[in-house]
Amino acid sequence: MAERVYLDHAATTPVDPRVVEAMLPYYYEAWGNPSGVYREAQAARKGLDQAHDQIAAILECSPNELVITSGGTEADNHALRGVAAARAHAGKHLISSTIEHHAILHTLEAMQAEGYEVTLVDVDAEGFVDPAAVAAAVRDDTVLVSIMAANNEVGTLQPLAEISRAVKDANPKTLVHSDAVQAAGAAEIRPDLLGLDLMSITAHKIYGPKGVGALYVRARTPFAPQIIGGGQERDRRAGTENVAGAIGLATALGLAASEYEARNAHQRSLRDGLWREIRERIDCVHLNGPNDFDLRLSNNLSVCFERVEGESILLQLDLDGIAASSGSACSTGSVEASHVLLAMGVDEQLAHGAVRLTVGTDNDEKQLEHVAQTLPAVIERLRALSPV
Amino acid sequence: MAERVYLDHAATTPVDPRVVEAMLPYYYEAWGNPSGVYREAQAARKGLDQAHDQIAAILECSPNELVITSGGTEADNHALRGVAAARAHAGKHLISSTIEHHAILHTLEAMQAEGYEVTLVDVDAEGFVDPAAVAAAVRDDTVLVSIMAANNEVGTLQPLAEISRAVKDANPKTLVHSDAVQAAGAAEIRPDLLGLDLMSITAHKIYGPKGVGALYVRARTPFAPQIIGGGQERDRRAGTENVAGAIGLATALGLAASEYEARNAHQRSLRDGLWREIRERIDCVHLNGPNDFDLRLSNNLSVCFERVEGESILLQLDLDGIAASSGSACSTGSVEASHVLLAMGVDEQLAHGAVRLTVGTDNDEKQLEHVAQTLPAVIERLRALSPV
Repeated sequence: MAERVYLDHAATTPVDPRVVEAMLPYYYEAWGNPSGVYREAQAARKGLDQAHDQIAAILECSPNELVITSGGTEADNHALRGVAAARAHAGKHLISSTIEHHAILHTLEAMQAEGYEVTLVDVDAEGFVDPAAVAAAVRDDTVLVSIMAANNEVGTLQPLAEISRAVKDANPKTLVHSDAVQAAGAAEIRPDLLGLDLMSITAHKIYGPKGVGALYVRARTPFAPQIIGGGQERDRRAGTENVAGAIGLATALGLAASEYEARNAHQRSLRDGLWREIRERIDCVHLNGPNDFDLRLSNNLSVCFERVEGESILLQLDLDGIAASSGSACSTGSVEASHVLLAMGVDEQLAHGAVRLTVGTDNDEKQLEHVAQTLPAVIERLRALSPV
Repeated sequence: MAERVYLDHAATTPVDPRVVEAMLPYYYEAWGNPSGVYREAQAARKGLDQAHDQIAAILECSPNELVITSGGTEADNHALRGVAAARAHAGKHLISSTIEHHAILHTLEAMQAEGYEVTLVDVDAEGFVDPAAVAAAVRDDTVLVSIMAANNEVGTLQPLAEISRAVKDANPKTLVHSDAVQAAGAAEIRPDLLGLDLMSITAHKIYGPKGVGALYVRARTPFAPQIIGGGQERDRRAGTENVAGAIGLATALGLAASEYEARNAHQRSLRDGLWREIRERIDCVHLNGPNDFDLRLSNNLSVCFERVEGESILLQLDLDGIAASSGSACSTGSVEASHVLLAMGVDEQLAHGAVRLTVGTDNDEKQLEHVAQTLPAVIERLRALSPV
């Protein structure tokens, strides 16, 4: 069997062996319950505290401002619901964008059914949210604005600092959350620099384990815990703490920070080269997301091929040893076109021909050359079969 | 340093190396996102399906009736809220007991503040819930009854099958959930045999990893997902699946099932011996929970020592190499007496002298002999210091 080329790093990443190595002592040795008073418990508590400290050092926040969660989806859900519940007296209006992850959009839909009011701000053709448009939507009763740091499908990096500033100018009491799940490791995610009150991240997009993430909640931010029971995570998230997972997240984030420049340069180089090859070798192909590659995630290439179905391309690529996706992993199997592409004004027919190719630290030029050679043949073959 | 003796297996257990071994391939190899269409994803999907299948085989249910969660607390929270939200049209009354875990009790308190009505059924002096008392509390608008399978502090095994039957006799539409977090591995937890519609378990109490559990939801049970976004877990729990964790839970549960008789016989023998020694060597000691040891968890010994503080005992035991707890791990540091003991009618002063000693597969007779020798000296010393 030929070597595989994995180009779906936006869906999930391989787990870095250094991350697993850091986690193993918390399975084999420091497996105690951090809430106990005895030595076995204190070893686990020390690990949990260390994880908070390491993440806090990278995000330049207080360890007490971090709530370890079971992942990005929980963090996103609970950011919205935690603030809305705690600020019910201040209003029931929330703002987000049309291209958010479903963890945000579906939660907002559910909240609308419960009596909340939601405004979704439109994006432009490249997926950008306009800070002025967000500010214009802010009302006296707007309790929270949630705008993702980077889009998971098309890689658009939002002007988050400008958005936060515009929101606070419009209503200083309105809180700002960002889903930074896809941005972590590839873009600025220090909440203070971005003017954020809350921020969600997850480990499995940055070479860490699945099932663990974190929600940053700025000190003194009104927040009602959404999973309750014991007093873990300073009464903001109940349940015996996933110590090994927290260490995995901290280690993955630490490696992403220390290797930030190298990783992004590597990814940018591979991604840029792949786009050059695709543009040269395949006609009727459209780039999704920012044309200015400095304004998109370093690992993201999203394209639409005319007269082919994205799903057909993926299946064919898989047979040829290449793993990619049509949009987000979470909507695989869906026959609907990407809500992100539609929101950006991409024609629905064309949107069905979307393919997302996201490179990672484990890819090399030889692999990308294989992709550049394989993809044109796949597209040609499928177009030849197409009735259109 | 002398060997440590860990006697807080009810708080958490060491992770069985066989469990870690089973998880590692899902970090090192099958790390894909189960939602993808390509080979890397399918390997992860296969692991996730296998985890569901293995758990289902042990619980004698359908794999589709299992929702993997981030642990027991999430499962408990979402059982209550998932049913209450889905059955809002049928009523807003819920029933539970006064000795449930805080994951249940605190969630019910929060729900009361939101307009739900809650009846907490009393327990007797040994911690038993009377099926007739539960039935008497059932109303036309009772949507859910939640009674734990085994109490985490005093080990009382509830007559769950009788309780379910009594509930269904009183109102066939009332659903029954059980927090079986502490019972798993030590008591009957097959939902069909117990007449349960929902049931919560977690991995870290049965020699599995922290951060993963499962909620059994009987087919066709009305259930509104509480973490939403992608369509994972058959639309009942969004978020990229913790595949390694699910494998860890399945493996731990599998080992608990295949070694069920041996583990429980081992634990019973150690626990019974310890109680004999304590009773012989220490005066003014009271057993908490059932006097009939067949009606309590095989690993649980809970006692109250007169004229001493439980916390002082624990700190002293720790110095002597023994790890134990005063009540539940989740309430450590609390100055309040255990709500479980108080509900059972234990005098508040006496309740402050509670110590929970829970043995496990890794304990042996020599260790317990050390405890039997150490504990009397500790109690004697502390009583000598006591002003009472």
